[in-house]
Amino acid sequence: MTSNPFSAEHRCALRHTPQVVALAGGVGGAKLAAGLQAVLPPGALTVVVNTGDDFEHWGLTICPDLDTVIYNLAGVNNPELGWGRADESFAVLKTVGLLGGEDWFRLGDKDLAVHLRRSEWLRQGSSLTEVTDRLRRALGVPSTVLPMSDLPVRTLVHTDEGDLPFQHYFVGRRCEPCVLDVSFVGAAEATLTDAVYTALAQADVVVFCPSNPYLSLDPILSVGEMRSLLPSLRAPKIAVAPIVGGQALKGPAAKMMREMGYPVSPVTIAAHFDGLLDGFVLDKIDAAAAAHVRMPALVADTLMHDLPSKAQLAATVLEFAATLWPVLASRPAP
Amino acid sequence: MTSNPFSAEHRCALRHTPQVVALAGGVGGAKLAAGLQAVLPPGALTVVVNTGDDFEHWGLTICPDLDTVIYNLAGVNNPELGWGRADESFAVLKTVGLLGGEDWFRLGDKDLAVHLRRSEWLRQGSSLTEVTDRLRRALGVPSTVLPMSDLPVRTLVHTDEGDLPFQHYFVGRRCEPCVLDVSFVGAAEATLTDAVYTALAQADVVVFCPSNPYLSLDPILSVGEMRSLLPSLRAPKIAVAPIVGGQALKGPAAKMMREMGYPVSPVTIAAHFDGLLDGFVLDKIDAAAAAHVRMPALVADTLMHDLPSKAQLAATVLEFAATLWPVLASRPAP
Repeated sequence: MTSNPFSAEHRCALRHTPQVVALAGGVGGAKLAAGLQAVLPPGALTVVVNTGDDFEHWGLTICPDLDTVIYNLAGVNNPELGWGRADESFAVLKTVGLLGGEDWFRLGDKDLAVHLRRSEWLRQGSSLTEVTDRLRRALGVPSTVLPMSDLPVRTLVHTDEGDLPFQHYFVGRRCEPCVLDVSFVGAAEATLTDAVYTALAQADVVVFCPSNPYLSLDPILSVGEMRSLLPSLRAPKIAVAPIVGGQALKGPAAKMMREMGYPVSPVTIAAHFDGLLDGFVLDKIDAAAAAHVRMPALVADTLMHDLPSKAQLAATVLEFAATLWPVLASRPAP
Repeated sequence: MTSNPFSAEHRCALRHTPQVVALAGGVGGAKLAAGLQAVLPPGALTVVVNTGDDFEHWGLTICPDLDTVIYNLAGVNNPELGWGRADESFAVLKTVGLLGGEDWFRLGDKDLAVHLRRSEWLRQGSSLTEVTDRLRRALGVPSTVLPMSDLPVRTLVHTDEGDLPFQHYFVGRRCEPCVLDVSFVGAAEATLTDAVYTALAQADVVVFCPSNPYLSLDPILSVGEMRSLLPSLRAPKIAVAPIVGGQALKGPAAKMMREMGYPVSPVTIAAHFDGLLDGFVLDKIDAAAAAHVRMPALVADTLMHDLPSKAQLAATVLEFAATLWPVLASRPAP
């Protein structure tokens, strides 16, 4: 395991335990979040998670990205599938199907238990932030996990087959329709929670995890004043490219980039987040692209196939962020 | 299998397929209902089921007696436990327990699928009658299954430890507290559904199944005008005693009778339904008690250990009812 990447000098300058906020969507984001949790002291990590994929199913509120992050941080995720839990069974799903119910969304039995708990609590009046905190504690996760908002934001994918709610595009149509654009219904009315605002205000580093920029990070950036808040923070904001060697590590990011007319390159990602980032991490296979990124860039091994490699990338990102502190400290206070 | 108990003569007198309505609670009622279904033509049986045991759990609406009846009629019940489904698993229950949720009520995975479907439909505005009909059809049940009302009636057990909602008395406290009385919250406001009213009005026979009189049949009798409606029907009303040889076949009926100061005898059951019945069936072990029942009584083998014995008892009850028709036909029309 990698040692704590914050040197004594850095820690002294901070005068407190460093606080890291990670913005994450599904699998890629959850992997780096697990790496960050592994190299940080308990409680130092807060993960702000996309809820644009959330939907109602079987009368329950399903939050796929929140669950993927919590399951990864708890070490109970299914690493083969990339979603759901390890050692999962599907007895309820099978019977619901036999009863004529919808079985296109593969809800496992253990996973369902989480949705039942969450839905009951939400119906009783708890906020999604409160419910998520109870669930991560119940699963023994030492990091804070926050939904990007307590108000509903729903990702709508505009395709050549018409507008599709996220899960119908992603699961129902297996990302096959050609994407023209993406929008976030409810984002204008949604507000950042106090918990997200406080975490960002207290952050020493903000990490844009290697999640799909259009489907996972853009929804987070669309909430309330998030886009205007980020540049005002003192913390360095570092993104890790989710595109490696011209491919997305997981999911439809590369396909979407082609469909929307962008080069499938880390440079496109860096440009997409222009004005929001202080540093950019890209894979060694894309080293040549680093020169085209208009900000401090670090070339690293970004592939995360096990916990040591996740922790190694996390440490690399935090060390890179630490090098940016002196520069940022000279910024005028917002 | 027993042949159709309605003779050609009887069928001719009826000029239509005989319609049988059974009033039922849980296990005992479900067994006789399965027997009736086995000897009647498809669609001839309607079971009106107690919903006083219904409750909210995990944010879902659970209807234990409706499910017990449907599972028995579908042949998917668990005959050993007396509740729930055969070949059941408990993956969700286990995980809900690990997440700090309530796991005292043993909800199986297949059973849960039914509760999920029902709760979603109810939330969408369907009536319990509509939802129950969809579920029994999905499980291939040819008989009509009706909740006693679409409005909530909740059985409250008054005990020496205070008032307990039914499931807390029955499952949570395993029927241990001493019962003083039973009441049915909401019964005064509840109304019979059109479906129940029509089924009763068209019935050729009404069977009081061998269910707990205080916890399963009294709630049905408490709904709206049920008590005044029954005596006005032309159909003979026959009860089968749930007490055999001084014991309840299942559940706390005998214990409750002792606690409330009644002799544990079929005669107590017959007296309890005085004014509502035209005939009474009691077990051969209680043959001596037949003389003390103040109505036509039939001594029969009432133990139902498999489908042939359920069908045999059902046929016996229907044959007994048929012998009462000429008498009833001479009643003045209501």
